[in-house]
Amino acid sequence: MSFPKRVFIREVGPREGMQIEPTEVSTDDKIRLINLLSECNFPVIEVTSFVSPKWVPKMADAELVAKNFKRYPGTEYQCVYLNAKGIERALATEKFDLEGVISITASETFSRKNTNKTIDETFKEMDERILALKRYNLSIDTLAVMTAFGCNYEGDIDGDFVIELIRKSLDKAKTHDVNPRQILLGDTVGWANPVLIENLVKKVQKNWPEKTIILHLHDTRGMGIANAYVGLKLGVTHFDSSVGGLGGCPFGGFEGAAGNIATEDLVHMCHELGIETGINLEKLLEVTEEAERILGRELTSKVYRGRSLDSYRQKIYS
Amino acid sequence: MSFPKRVFIREVGPREGMQIEPTEVSTDDKIRLINLLSECNFPVIEVTSFVSPKWVPKMADAELVAKNFKRYPGTEYQCVYLNAKGIERALATEKFDLEGVISITASETFSRKNTNKTIDETFKEMDERILALKRYNLSIDTLAVMTAFGCNYEGDIDGDFVIELIRKSLDKAKTHDVNPRQILLGDTVGWANPVLIENLVKKVQKNWPEKTIILHLHDTRGMGIANAYVGLKLGVTHFDSSVGGLGGCPFGGFEGAAGNIATEDLVHMCHELGIETGINLEKLLEVTEEAERILGRELTSKVYRGRSLDSYRQKIYS
Repeated sequence: MSFPKRVFIREVGPREGMQIEPTEVSTDDKIRLINLLSECNFPVIEVTSFVSPKWVPKMADAELVAKNFKRYPGTEYQCVYLNAKGIERALATEKFDLEGVISITASETFSRKNTNKTIDETFKEMDERILALKRYNLSIDTLAVMTAFGCNYEGDIDGDFVIELIRKSLDKAKTHDVNPRQILLGDTVGWANPVLIENLVKKVQKNWPEKTIILHLHDTRGMGIANAYVGLKLGVTHFDSSVGGLGGCPFGGFEGAAGNIATEDLVHMCHELGIETGINLEKLLEVTEEAERILGRELTSKVYRGRSLDSYRQKIYS
Repeated sequence: MSFPKRVFIREVGPREGMQIEPTEVSTDDKIRLINLLSECNFPVIEVTSFVSPKWVPKMADAELVAKNFKRYPGTEYQCVYLNAKGIERALATEKFDLEGVISITASETFSRKNTNKTIDETFKEMDERILALKRYNLSIDTLAVMTAFGCNYEGDIDGDFVIELIRKSLDKAKTHDVNPRQILLGDTVGWANPVLIENLVKKVQKNWPEKTIILHLHDTRGMGIANAYVGLKLGVTHFDSSVGGLGGCPFGGFEGAAGNIATEDLVHMCHELGIETGINLEKLLEVTEEAERILGRELTSKVYRGRSLDSYRQKIYS
């Protein structure tokens, strides 16, 4: 397959990145970061998490962030919630384009540690989840598979097992007349490599050719951009990433987590390959600068340090 | 084409990395780094440069380094020289497996700035270079093309122009009964992307199927490992890289230079793809630790921070 003409990049830095970063970030800085990101013209920004402040203290200011960030036309603003309470909190702010997501984790141990449920229990509670989403009139667009390529606790994950989990989840959804149009494959802790990406993406494409695949990649071992490249070659059009590779700091003691691929490196590669993203890369690099200031450390984005090739071309060819 | 069974990685950190790094590194630290790298079982290590200390003060201790590093069996030790004087200095140490290299730069401006010669002048002086190498009985194994994918001064470089330069260089060599068996394609300042790699490697393979291609990649804009992956897919067996991505520090004001891809990230990807390197990755990660200590800064290697997947597998499956 050839490259897609256009890809859609969801910026997850304000939510996923901030959740992993060990630095305390003020509510004002979070809001400024989101507003700056909005100026870059992302199709989707994941803003915050409506979860228990007891478990995730970094997201205790979710309401304040939601209230004060500015919505830009053309951008969808998403957030994470785990249960009905989270949905209600998010809805109360009237700031979000709430997406209905059902999730499953391919590693039994990671599932227990991260969600306090076994895989079987997740399936059992999926009915309840779907009913809750329907009760709030959320369109169930996405089935997300976490640790789809491997896990620090269980090691390698078999692609056929992932396909089976997807099939079971879609069957379950079908009993509720629900048919998610998107399948998110999450390399949650950075076990994917280009061959694993190719194998699993092809399997999903073969089984469900009508579904949109979202690749959620982490760059824990330096293969994130290579993995994204293979996805592009296979026609994948949807990617998650975080500005500056935010969340990639492994000093927070957040065992099992690691940074997303850096948005600017992904955007830059797409543009170099002639693939449109709609994102203003030079503006995005200004956001990286601000993110470094906020976090007080060097971020891992390469393009931020090396500058974009287009910035050189503009000097050379003008 | 499928992956090669085995690849050969040349560690260039002690020479190229050290040359770019802004930190002053003591001769003792350089020697310790080389000795530690030798324990990792590299097929080739590039140790130092015999160049004028007036132009490259960081390499003024080349003789001292050469005298005191320990040769390990099974590893070849190479060095850089620019002229007959450099060859004589290198030969005098009796420590090197001297390689005969002829070079050409694909960007006119970079050629002038880096070698003080135009492309035409380089061709004119190539006879002299070849005669000098022959005089010292050096086997002329490699034709190196610098800035083969683009350049900060001239922008994009046309692949067909690179092929023409290679052809002219090989023709010139032929008049001296010399036939380099290797062609090095250097992405000297990080302009390559996976498509450019595919196009140029395929062109070289088509024109000279009998030649060994060496990919010399830099990770200036985050595509280095993706570029290496594409090389592997095309059957490329020889790569240059530097431990920790040494030399990737862009604060040295060394305009036009940027870090090589990190050796451990390349080795790790190869191992994950089932490709042998012969290199002891866990030992290499100890060298990265030492390199960080020596340079007093965080290096950009991802596997060093995220740890190898095999180290996880050993805990999980034992």
